[in-house]
Amino acid sequence: MTRRLPRTERSDARDNRARILDAARAVFGEEGLSAPMREVARQAGVGPATLYRHFPTKQALVTAAFTDRMAACAALVDRGLADPDPERGFRTAVVEVSVLHALDQGFSAAFLAAYPQAVDTAAARERGLRAFTRLARRAQRAGAVRADLVPDDLVLLLMANRGVRAGSPAATAAAARRLAALLLQSLRAPIDRLPPPVPLSFPGP
Amino acid sequence: MTRRLPRTERSDARDNRARILDAARAVFGEEGLSAPMREVARQAGVGPATLYRHFPTKQALVTAAFTDRMAACAALVDRGLADPDPERGFRTAVVEVSVLHALDQGFSAAFLAAYPQAVDTAAARERGLRAFTRLARRAQRAGAVRADLVPDDLVLLLMANRGVRAGSPAATAAAARRLAALLLQSLRAPIDRLPPPVPLSFPGP
Repeated sequence: MTRRLPRTERSDARDNRARILDAARAVFGEEGLSAPMREVARQAGVGPATLYRHFPTKQALVTAAFTDRMAACAALVDRGLADPDPERGFRTAVVEVSVLHALDQGFSAAFLAAYPQAVDTAAARERGLRAFTRLARRAQRAGAVRADLVPDDLVLLLMANRGVRAGSPAATAAAARRLAALLLQSLRAPIDRLPPPVPLSFPGP
Repeated sequence: MTRRLPRTERSDARDNRARILDAARAVFGEEGLSAPMREVARQAGVGPATLYRHFPTKQALVTAAFTDRMAACAALVDRGLADPDPERGFRTAVVEVSVLHALDQGFSAAFLAAYPQAVDTAAARERGLRAFTRLARRAQRAGAVRADLVPDDLVLLLMANRGVRAGSPAATAAAARRLAALLLQSLRAPIDRLPPPVPLSFPGP
């Protein structure tokens, strides 16, 4: 007979926390951030008291549920900045961030939510948007992205992407890629930069 | 003293119906089509029995609530088709349909909802998309729109537009216009059509 270790309260708490976070991602992903806390508790199989002990506010729950996604999103932008080719770095990051957001509607809603009191989410979002803006600026300086692109356009891209849903995750990702490709085409600088001018002298008579 | 006409049951029913439709547009616009029927009844100030007497199913309510919007949307596409300039007709319709959808999130949700049983909504949507496709095809034949645009891309445009929300209706409309302009730029045929070739003979020696 196998001897089972008695489960400590601490490991119970850890399990509950993990289950609550999984449920939060599922519920917010399906119903948006307006889904009630009690629905998260129900799906996690814990009582409201346990839920509120771990996460006293919805904002704390949203922040904790999407910390990993926020980091993954930031890593995609950082990878773009590490690409020595400014245009490729920008384009790749736009496509990959779009797909990441499209595949996790809960995260996308959390990222774009106007939660003035969500200090943690807002701070992480601001950091993410600042890095994304650096990436866009670098591509603009290289002449690869139109000069009239502003940081709010990056939010517009994410908002546009948020509306995209297809029948399966694979189809949603494919639709997000098609939309990103269309938008990237518009974001290119209107004409390729010309090679440097060459001083030309008229041949003598 | 003014003599007031006694209100007939028929005019009561008419008032109730109008109030229910107003409430449905407001509730579905804010909370999406998943908002419960009882919330519509509450906002309309009628009992559930009255609501269900007028609209036995949510689908009947959604269809009735957005009939006018659906007709307005179809009229914008028809106006595009009536424009003798295929490119201008297409571009104007894309912008105006985008703004109409952005300003009425409830209608946009109803239009894009996968409601297999919503026969009326689905039929009107199919008619609308077919007209929109004719408009796009005409612009493609004129060489103004890229050849690889497919009808599903028109749905993608509407989905992208659905994600756009700003702080006020005016800002939302402006953001929808900016997104439509970006997307239209991508939808242009890659290069302008060249003027017809001219047979050239080499000058004799």
